[in-house]
Amino acid sequence: MLEFFGEIKQDLQVVERELNSVVRTQNALLTETSTHLLNAGGKRLRPALILFSAKFYNYDLEKVLPLAVAIELIHMSSLVHDDVVDASMTRRGIPTVKAKWGNSISIHIGSYFFAKSLNLIARYEGIPLISKVLSDTSVKMCEGEIHQISASFNVQQNLRDYLYRINRKTALLIAASAQLGAVACGAPKSIHMPLRRYGHGIGMAFQITDDILDMVSEQSQLGKPVGGDLRQGIITLPVIRALACSKERERLKILVHKVDKSEDEVQECIRIIKECGAIDYSFEIALKYIKKAKEELKHLPDIPTRLTLNLAADFVGARKF
Amino acid sequence: MLEFFGEIKQDLQVVERELNSVVRTQNALLTETSTHLLNAGGKRLRPALILFSAKFYNYDLEKVLPLAVAIELIHMSSLVHDDVVDASMTRRGIPTVKAKWGNSISIHIGSYFFAKSLNLIARYEGIPLISKVLSDTSVKMCEGEIHQISASFNVQQNLRDYLYRINRKTALLIAASAQLGAVACGAPKSIHMPLRRYGHGIGMAFQITDDILDMVSEQSQLGKPVGGDLRQGIITLPVIRALACSKERERLKILVHKVDKSEDEVQECIRIIKECGAIDYSFEIALKYIKKAKEELKHLPDIPTRLTLNLAADFVGARKF
Repeated sequence: MLEFFGEIKQDLQVVERELNSVVRTQNALLTETSTHLLNAGGKRLRPALILFSAKFYNYDLEKVLPLAVAIELIHMSSLVHDDVVDASMTRRGIPTVKAKWGNSISIHIGSYFFAKSLNLIARYEGIPLISKVLSDTSVKMCEGEIHQISASFNVQQNLRDYLYRINRKTALLIAASAQLGAVACGAPKSIHMPLRRYGHGIGMAFQITDDILDMVSEQSQLGKPVGGDLRQGIITLPVIRALACSKERERLKILVHKVDKSEDEVQECIRIIKECGAIDYSFEIALKYIKKAKEELKHLPDIPTRLTLNLAADFVGARKF
Repeated sequence: MLEFFGEIKQDLQVVERELNSVVRTQNALLTETSTHLLNAGGKRLRPALILFSAKFYNYDLEKVLPLAVAIELIHMSSLVHDDVVDASMTRRGIPTVKAKWGNSISIHIGSYFFAKSLNLIARYEGIPLISKVLSDTSVKMCEGEIHQISASFNVQQNLRDYLYRINRKTALLIAASAQLGAVACGAPKSIHMPLRRYGHGIGMAFQITDDILDMVSEQSQLGKPVGGDLRQGIITLPVIRALACSKERERLKILVHKVDKSEDEVQECIRIIKECGAIDYSFEIALKYIKKAKEELKHLPDIPTRLTLNLAADFVGARKF
């Protein structure tokens, strides 16, 4: 568990128990795969944000519990579907559901988790904003993934394409997490909107950092092979920057565009990207989002949780895993 | 369009236009695949049932339109995911999304259609029963699919396993369609519950007939290769019956259990199944469900639509495609 979770540690354990209980069924295979998925790690950042968010207005665990569970199920649903798409065999150093049980089970487990989340969200019938935000977010998450596929290996794209995509892929669900905890407790717009914008900022920074780490980490730390995005043709911020400013950009263009890269070619891409300062540039963009996120916190009541969210933002900007 | 759709023909065209408009986006690939999927045929049985159902209580197209579109999107979402799981290359004689664009796109298009349906369902915030029924149904549909995978090539299963599965895979969504049109127009339980039970009956019969046709059709009529279920190890009613009563059941057991069947072996299975009367037996079970469905209609107001639903039930029992 992340260190700044302190304040909500116990309630997060309740979320964890509830997550495990919600996916349990009479079907042994379903229970086994679901449990594997839940226990394969994960920072539980999104449920934590739900709880933190609720702290800003009449905190009540009972009111946010189904939502905290639902949001993690939506997140895991997208992860397990992505593993099919990316043909990933490990995630966080542990075999994926796809690797252990194949594509069929992965697809159904992903859909099952998503459907289960709807069951939970249906309980908030008195607060239509919750299902509205989450259905909009789910639509846009798919749009982001499909955009990523249509743009793969395409060296013509720019910063705007990239930001469009990571907003949909990642930031929107984190923004929803940061917003909806407060919404579920009945908070007014003046509270839940700054929280949403805070979530958006750290969400964008989170994905940018993820994309940087995919190039500069050690495999042991990343839990999956380094350079995966390059191999899959996913053009991330460091690549876009290097394609615009590296002296070797013509060579990089050819390499990035190539569908079947050798290990040497992947390493050559990473070298070119590093040497032109594209990694530092990307970290700076991430830090700008972190800064914006922190600015939003100033509009919120000055409770201890505000400081925690400040620390959480710093963590996202500085994380190495 | 099916002949008994007459009464709702024009409104069903409005549904069709709305379906096409709902999935249109700025992403060319997304629009192209969605349009392919929508135009690849489909009987639109579920939206039709929504409309028919609404006829029993203050029919108002505007009130049921989002629901009719949503229910078809849920259905198509499950179809496109099934095509990945089943590795199907054609459906209704037309290349599947999987065949044309691959697994990744199929998964995301499926999730996209499903998420879009939530957007539409979110509009019924005043009628919580709608999102409750549909989220429960979605969870159970996944359970059915996963049960089917865990039970594949397993010759020990019985009628109960089979009925459990087809209820989840098929009948629940058809039951929901028959129920929720009336619900969306404000109908009381005394109207929407018989409609639901009617939908359940024809849904069960629909799937049993589907499973029979997979063995006795011509490929040209089926739009996909005959014997597909046997190849995939899906144990359907005719197989369960033949395993229980054929003189050649020991031979059949070996063949059904075999993972890679030759074309001759598939044909031998079908011959054994046909010769012991398992096809006729299965048709009888389907007819029992049709009869039950028709019984339920007697509890409904005697409007022309009631006669149409009676005809629709007969169609499901007698259909050859």
